[in-house]
Amino acid sequence: MKFPKSIQKLVDLFSDLPSVGPKTAERYVFYLLKQTGEKLQEFAQAIAELKEKTTVCQNCLAVTESNPCLICLNNKRKIKQICVVTNTQDMLTIEATKQYNGVYHVLGGVINTIEGIKPEQLNIKQLIGRIKNDNIEEMILALNPTVEGETTSLYLAKLLKPYKLKITKLARGLPMGSDLQYADEITLSNAFKYRNKL
Amino acid sequence: MKFPKSIQKLVDLFSDLPSVGPKTAERYVFYLLKQTGEKLQEFAQAIAELKEKTTVCQNCLAVTESNPCLICLNNKRKIKQICVVTNTQDMLTIEATKQYNGVYHVLGGVINTIEGIKPEQLNIKQLIGRIKNDNIEEMILALNPTVEGETTSLYLAKLLKPYKLKITKLARGLPMGSDLQYADEITLSNAFKYRNKL
Repeated sequence: MKFPKSIQKLVDLFSDLPSVGPKTAERYVFYLLKQTGEKLQEFAQAIAELKEKTTVCQNCLAVTESNPCLICLNNKRKIKQICVVTNTQDMLTIEATKQYNGVYHVLGGVINTIEGIKPEQLNIKQLIGRIKNDNIEEMILALNPTVEGETTSLYLAKLLKPYKLKITKLARGLPMGSDLQYADEITLSNAFKYRNKL
Repeated sequence: MKFPKSIQKLVDLFSDLPSVGPKTAERYVFYLLKQTGEKLQEFAQAIAELKEKTTVCQNCLAVTESNPCLICLNNKRKIKQICVVTNTQDMLTIEATKQYNGVYHVLGGVINTIEGIKPEQLNIKQLIGRIKNDNIEEMILALNPTVEGETTSLYLAKLLKPYKLKITKLARGLPMGSDLQYADEITLSNAFKYRNKL
């Protein structure tokens, strides 16, 4: 073992975080060693309480502190418009734009044959339940513009066809501030295909 | 606030870690949300105990679990040979090579005029104390080959000249596996300057 036991233990735990290797984990631990005892206690408590203080909204399945979540409870929001997102992070990213006034449904992932994630593992049953109960009019598919995201969108669109609701997906095209010269073929093809009237 | 309170709190704490921005911090927190309660308790405990279980060696000033540290206590090591390092991490990196059999002295940083780190803030007084008490014969300066590291090495070499000990610094030259074509000018100049007989 390279480090004293208590340091090595924390290095190993930090290394488990996504895209953190042992060297980065070491930097984190030695940064923490320079902090005050109170700061470390605060950090420890925040991690310990993370699961205790959060729950999953029974309605939209987002990670939240109240159940139902504040969005589902807000009666100013259009309950008949559901935006389907991969996870809570994506939901909060959309919320930050302040452009959307409907409700959400967290899918909990996307179909991924390589990683073995099948439709049954996603929150699709709950989505169908909501479509039936809440008389949903529009479903916006806000999944990532990746192979997996598109596959899942197509799967959902096909599956939910019988319910005769309006199904849309987020626009594909050139992102703001990008350079046409460096745009990939698919993005540019989409930009042509979905071109807008001025 | 974008996130529920308990999540935002942990995102903020993770964002304080070196080179972690809010987006990376979010990824860490949402990764932790997927872990079991026990795993989070373990993580929290490891952080809480970090400072309690570690101390600083009275001799070499390295972060350690025993005082004096295991290296200073090891009587098989050459006590008259001191390797001066910036921090405990660098000491442990050198230890991992298993090539050095002397003792260490952790400087706690390097002189940096931009960041306002002056010689008085480094563990130089303790180093001089050891040179006087332990009758040190050789001092190896193992500081980073950067402007700050070189400045500190020169400062120490000048300061410790009166004690008439052998002062060396780690070799400068081409790193293994590198490509001569892409070596910078200073590295290549050093490689010429310090060339070795075959």
